[in-house]
Amino acid sequence: MNRIWLDEIVRTALEEDIGPGDLTVEAVVDPGTRAQARIYAKAEGVIAGTQVAARAFQLLDPEVRFQSVPDGTEVAPGDIVADISGEAAAILSAERVALNFLQRLSGIATETARAAKAAAPYGARIVDTRKTTPGLRALEKAAVRAGGGGNHRLGLYDAVLLKENHIALAGGIGPAVARAKERVGHMVKIEVEVESLHQVEEALAAGVDAILLDNMSLDEMRRAVEMIAGRAIVEASGGITPERVAEVASCGVDVISLGSLTHSARALDLSLLIEVES
Amino acid sequence: MNRIWLDEIVRTALEEDIGPGDLTVEAVVDPGTRAQARIYAKAEGVIAGTQVAARAFQLLDPEVRFQSVPDGTEVAPGDIVADISGEAAAILSAERVALNFLQRLSGIATETARAAKAAAPYGARIVDTRKTTPGLRALEKAAVRAGGGGNHRLGLYDAVLLKENHIALAGGIGPAVARAKERVGHMVKIEVEVESLHQVEEALAAGVDAILLDNMSLDEMRRAVEMIAGRAIVEASGGITPERVAEVASCGVDVISLGSLTHSARALDLSLLIEVES
Amino acid sequence: MNRIWLDEIVRTALEEDIGPGDLTVEAVVDPGTRAQARIYAKAEGVIAGTQVAARAFQLLDPEVRFQSVPDGTEVAPGDIVADISGEAAAILSAERVALNFLQRLSGIATETARAAKAAAPYGARIVDTRKTTPGLRALEKAAVRAGGGGNHRLGLYDAVLLKENHIALAGGIGPAVARAKERVGHMVKIEVEVESLHQVEEALAAGVDAILLDNMSLDEMRRAVEMIAGRAIVEASGGITPERVAEVASCGVDVISLGSLTHSARALDLSLLIEVES
Amino acid sequence: MNRIWLDEIVRTALEEDIGPGDLTVEAVVDPGTRAQARIYAKAEGVIAGTQVAARAFQLLDPEVRFQSVPDGTEVAPGDIVADISGEAAAILSAERVALNFLQRLSGIATETARAAKAAAPYGARIVDTRKTTPGLRALEKAAVRAGGGGNHRLGLYDAVLLKENHIALAGGIGPAVARAKERVGHMVKIEVEVESLHQVEEALAAGVDAILLDNMSLDEMRRAVEMIAGRAIVEASGGITPERVAEVASCGVDVISLGSLTHSARALDLSLLIEVES
Amino acid sequence: MNRIWLDEIVRTALEEDIGPGDLTVEAVVDPGTRAQARIYAKAEGVIAGTQVAARAFQLLDPEVRFQSVPDGTEVAPGDIVADISGEAAAILSAERVALNFLQRLSGIATETARAAKAAAPYGARIVDTRKTTPGLRALEKAAVRAGGGGNHRLGLYDAVLLKENHIALAGGIGPAVARAKERVGHMVKIEVEVESLHQVEEALAAGVDAILLDNMSLDEMRRAVEMIAGRAIVEASGGITPERVAEVASCGVDVISLGSLTHSARALDLSLLIEVES
Amino acid sequence: MNRIWLDEIVRTALEEDIGPGDLTVEAVVDPGTRAQARIYAKAEGVIAGTQVAARAFQLLDPEVRFQSVPDGTEVAPGDIVADISGEAAAILSAERVALNFLQRLSGIATETARAAKAAAPYGARIVDTRKTTPGLRALEKAAVRAGGGGNHRLGLYDAVLLKENHIALAGGIGPAVARAKERVGHMVKIEVEVESLHQVEEALAAGVDAILLDNMSLDEMRRAVEMIAGRAIVEASGGITPERVAEVASCGVDVISLGSLTHSARALDLSLLIEVES
Repeated sequence: MNRIWLDEIVRTALEEDIGPGDLTVEAVVDPGTRAQARIYAKAEGVIAGTQVAARAFQLLDPEVRFQSVPDGTEVAPGDIVADISGEAAAILSAERVALNFLQRLSGIATETARAAKAAAPYGARIVDTRKTTPGLRALEKAAVRAGGGGNHRLGLYDAVLLKENHIALAGGIGPAVARAKERVGHMVKIEVEVESLHQVEEALAAGVDAILLDNMSLDEMRRAVEMIAGRAIVEASGGITPERVAEVASCGVDVISLGSLTHSARALDLSLLIEVES
Repeated sequence: MNRIWLDEIVRTALEEDIGPGDLTVEAVVDPGTRAQARIYAKAEGVIAGTQVAARAFQLLDPEVRFQSVPDGTEVAPGDIVADISGEAAAILSAERVALNFLQRLSGIATETARAAKAAAPYGARIVDTRKTTPGLRALEKAAVRAGGGGNHRLGLYDAVLLKENHIALAGGIGPAVARAKERVGHMVKIEVEVESLHQVEEALAAGVDAILLDNMSLDEMRRAVEMIAGRAIVEASGGITPERVAEVASCGVDVISLGSLTHSARALDLSLLIEVES
Repeated sequence: MNRIWLDEIVRTALEEDIGPGDLTVEAVVDPGTRAQARIYAKAEGVIAGTQVAARAFQLLDPEVRFQSVPDGTEVAPGDIVADISGEAAAILSAERVALNFLQRLSGIATETARAAKAAAPYGARIVDTRKTTPGLRALEKAAVRAGGGGNHRLGLYDAVLLKENHIALAGGIGPAVARAKERVGHMVKIEVEVESLHQVEEALAAGVDAILLDNMSLDEMRRAVEMIAGRAIVEASGGITPERVAEVASCGVDVISLGSLTHSARALDLSLLIEVES
Repeated sequence: MNRIWLDEIVRTALEEDIGPGDLTVEAVVDPGTRAQARIYAKAEGVIAGTQVAARAFQLLDPEVRFQSVPDGTEVAPGDIVADISGEAAAILSAERVALNFLQRLSGIATETARAAKAAAPYGARIVDTRKTTPGLRALEKAAVRAGGGGNHRLGLYDAVLLKENHIALAGGIGPAVARAKERVGHMVKIEVEVESLHQVEEALAAGVDAILLDNMSLDEMRRAVEMIAGRAIVEASGGITPERVAEVASCGVDVISLGSLTHSARALDLSLLIEVES
Repeated sequence: MNRIWLDEIVRTALEEDIGPGDLTVEAVVDPGTRAQARIYAKAEGVIAGTQVAARAFQLLDPEVRFQSVPDGTEVAPGDIVADISGEAAAILSAERVALNFLQRLSGIATETARAAKAAAPYGARIVDTRKTTPGLRALEKAAVRAGGGGNHRLGLYDAVLLKENHIALAGGIGPAVARAKERVGHMVKIEVEVESLHQVEEALAAGVDAILLDNMSLDEMRRAVEMIAGRAIVEASGGITPERVAEVASCGVDVISLGSLTHSARALDLSLLIEVES
Repeated sequence: MNRIWLDEIVRTALEEDIGPGDLTVEAVVDPGTRAQARIYAKAEGVIAGTQVAARAFQLLDPEVRFQSVPDGTEVAPGDIVADISGEAAAILSAERVALNFLQRLSGIATETARAAKAAAPYGARIVDTRKTTPGLRALEKAAVRAGGGGNHRLGLYDAVLLKENHIALAGGIGPAVARAKERVGHMVKIEVEVESLHQVEEALAAGVDAILLDNMSLDEMRRAVEMIAGRAIVEASGGITPERVAEVASCGVDVISLGSLTHSARALDLSLLIEVES
């Protein structure tokens, strides 16, 4: 994780919440008061975002000590996630921002871990999509890794994915791939989204690095995997619910991408308890 | 909605996704190609974020025309949400960002509308919390309004909410409220979080604008409402699931705040279809 | 005060003054030279902005030690306001920015203290307005508090103030208040600006939190206070000069708002003397 | 005026005031409502900052029409300063920011014009200092020009001014000037602050472009002007009140710099009246 | 090219040059004066950066018309590169920034075209490196494409390149590649830098997408190409001067990367002539 | 050098290169691994930019120790330029950015030193122009000083340079200078670009601080120097190659400005070797 980006994201979040000042803390917390706090899990899940939470406290009080389990740790209700000590005012003002990050990212890691477990027996990898929260993509993609998943491309800039609309504009899979190969550098992979076995053939003929099977039936996916036979990475995508991960994985695809990992994961329930230092 | 903030948020999201450039679009879309696109609903829900989606396209092509249903519209699968026309490159490059906003915000509006419907017969209002997505709070609070809910405070700066930790630091509800009244301006409301009927009495004695009943049983809430008797706004909060909204509302509380509206809403399923202009 | 905002404001001020570099200091100060400096008062007043001044020096040299009297301290000519030690180059380059903040904010605190003293016998509170220096509102509002005053709303976002134009657009005080109540959250107060006793009645009937008596005569104000009788906070405003504060306060209003505190306060005269370390 | 800087300053001011949204306007102004507004003078003075005010409205509604008298215009109570038409919501939300700029900058222009008038008979020019409002220097320096004054250096980067502390660090005026000449480019002027006639001689011997007479008596100033005899620009500075400008100018100095122009000018009283379009 | 990034880069450049204002233009150009300008080539070369130059003028005057040859056009001394018309002040103030971009980027395109021509007979592609000007990478990589070259990875985030230090830290090529494959997504390519034929074998055994032959002799390169035999992309790099491009290309490598394209290209000589409109 | 600007420039460069993360380092470097690195010269030259390079490492790891030769040091192949120790991940991720700055700036210092050496026997000073890399001007101007040159104006804001187009718009040298004198402050110098001896006379008559002889023959320059006779600084400019510096200097001009110092300097060859701590 790029530390400079991380700080910018956390700073924006703190500014959004604190704005001109924390009226409550300014009223009741005497300057210099110190406190200790502990974050507990209130549900089962996988932790992600500890570094983000740490920065939330540290940007308000550079001397805050923050110790936590590492990202990727499985927790059960009552487990300690992090211990924090520093200025009481900083801990109280940053609490909500830190938890907002930690709960959301741990929710994503938890969801990913479930899907990854379902796919594991078949050797398929669970990956994310670009359906992430605007502004938080790098953090959410790290959370997917913490949950045992992999990352699809980071954005529109690091890989080519030719979808239906692009293909139509270029006049077919062949011309679309040809134009992409001419435009992009030798270190960029090219993937094509296909909706039929006929298109799988076109993609193979055009020579692509990966083929995305969009909304195919299990049977079609099995046949596509056979046709491709290792000549390209095979990705299954399109409305795959967590419950369907195992059956899709059983078709032999290499990766399964799930938008729901990031756009619809439920936050993991966590709680912060504070104790003023005597 | 502050237009200047709106543009900053959307610009950040576009930069995140496009980065140094959209490799796919640069490869296959000829400059000058124009297109029309339409966004459809694929599920039942309430729309929010249309203005945000519009800006995503317009920041890449100031000439884009974007027409949509107004925020707050209920949609069913197949309903048209928006019509867009402009440069094909801009529409394709902004599509994902626009949908990421629109689906998330519509998901929040949809969730809010369900809760509001359940609370309506009892005259209670559904409100949000500060458990919003870092960086998107103003948008998410607008989505709650679009869904028929109301807004709790915007951040730490516009109202006082004395929670357990603040009360402990100040030495009780009485001293905490007194310090807050001294510190804040005459246009700022003060709310206290209470966990027992005894604390309700303390809050009333201290003179507060609102009392938050935290994780109380239905019975306790009913008795608290009676005790307060209109002398303060009564808010119920703390792990209230959508299913429990009606029974909580039936206790006579004025507002019910739900963190899940913003931290765990599922994205509303929407789809964008593009058509190149002939 | 939000530390992140504070640093951004001070950084902007330093960039404005130093730009590509301090030609004079680069020419005459040998790197590594250390110095001590002292800020003295050259006039009577109340100090505000010490934390801002501290950051000006520390952003150029993180090791600078800055010790000062606390904000709100009354000073007389010759009194020491702050002692500073660190790199001579940093102290010299930041001097003007630090003093520009400190003198302006202390000027505001001084002006506020004078008005507050005049209002005190009558129990009225002096508050600021939104007529602050663009970009410095949070600092100036803190200076008003340092001078013993209170804060009116922070901006357009944290409270409703229905003025003449808003009332006209909504079709009267009643409809305007009704629309505001529907729109804003339960933690937001609503104030109405009135110009006649008739409007005071309308405001009371509509149910508002505060009533602003705009440019009323002393007699009208006294009668308004009687009519309101504690049912709303009473604010006097509109061209009230410091000299008139006592007579306005004597009418029994709760708060008196003065734009001049921030838009026309004279800077407090302060001086920084430097001494190179031997 | 650099248009890019101008927009950044105005944008910051709007964000500060509007934040997440203008609660009052969102409640009472129907989208699409249009209005006309007029800004009047309520006191005698010189107008400055019209371009800044224009941008405040235009950044919220790019279609706003804003027509005003030119900067530098003398106005009397009742005179029209500007006419505005556009979206009612934009005009109401930007009103305070526009006036905060316009009143402050016109106050500076007014103060400058008074001083310039006093100095004119003696051929002396009134100039500003670096004692400007943090963040607004470029605007305030333009206001000084609008009032008939001139600008001293813009910051620490565009000219050398050797003050007491710099001279002490360099070991005297001679060495200080020598070091400055070596460091800075051939397009940079060098000025020295002197406190005695002896130092005037040293400065002349060192060869400087300008000499700042700091806190000298009228008699000393007259003798300094004689000694310098056109070999350097002569500037008088140091606690010169507006009332003393004429007598200082009569000593024959070329420029008189006044910190009070920018740090203590009173805002010019202006008023905006709005009218909704029928 | 991402238009949002483009505008940010050009805005930064204009702010750097204009700062608080263009003293010369403000002094001599009457507001409203219009002008036409023409940019000519004064040397042979290939044009790049026309879109960047256009934005420089348009950000100061949104109405500027800018028409130019397309990027990639070969020009000879005297050829017209662009025609511009708009406000005289905007054209004069933006001139240097526009030319600074256009000359630098055209210099890069020109250098690239020369190398590409030398490599073409052998089917090798000329590509850039990360040795670009800080802040201008996306623009410089577009200039390389305009000159007929290709792009290596955009940054550290879009592809893996295992260099000597990484390999040492991981304990050899095999473990390094294995760790990279585990970490990165399925859309990311992996390249290894090798210094010997033995390492070529290790890289092939590890299974990589590309192999970078670092500072090898022509003979070694030929043998490496034979060994690799199409199983990975072969890149030659390391101190290859433009003069050596042909002989390196003749070894059969796929791509040749040249840091000098961006870190040491000479600016293309261009000139802007202005004509005030009558 | 303004430290705040410096950090912003380096932060931008790091963000550009690292983006969402350094894939290679994240894959192969274990957290906590420490390393030492050394930067060597691989060619003869003059070092500049060490402070910039230091910040590149320190912004990723605040604990990095960076020790280097001072800017302005002449180096030969094999000489040590800097020693670095800190986190291996930070050193590897910042390496390219640090070198990109250091090599470019040292290239400029090297080029400047060569020209300065050629001009020295004649007492002429080598200065830069505004033909700098967009975004890096302050750094490049510091590099010119490190190489023994001087700085021309920093931008359009700190001095007046009346060129052909400005003169034409104002109606001649006389009126142009008169308008400039009226507009700018007393601390701003005015230079005129002339193309003939006749214009030299006009400039002298108008009273300017400096005269730029544009593209004159050696003979014309000699005669211009005689005519001016110390009444203004004499600058030679316009397509002066490094080879021609000596003959131009021999004409008696005071300063020679060279755009090529910054727009076409070749990067100095430097190399960083890393060693993991045992």
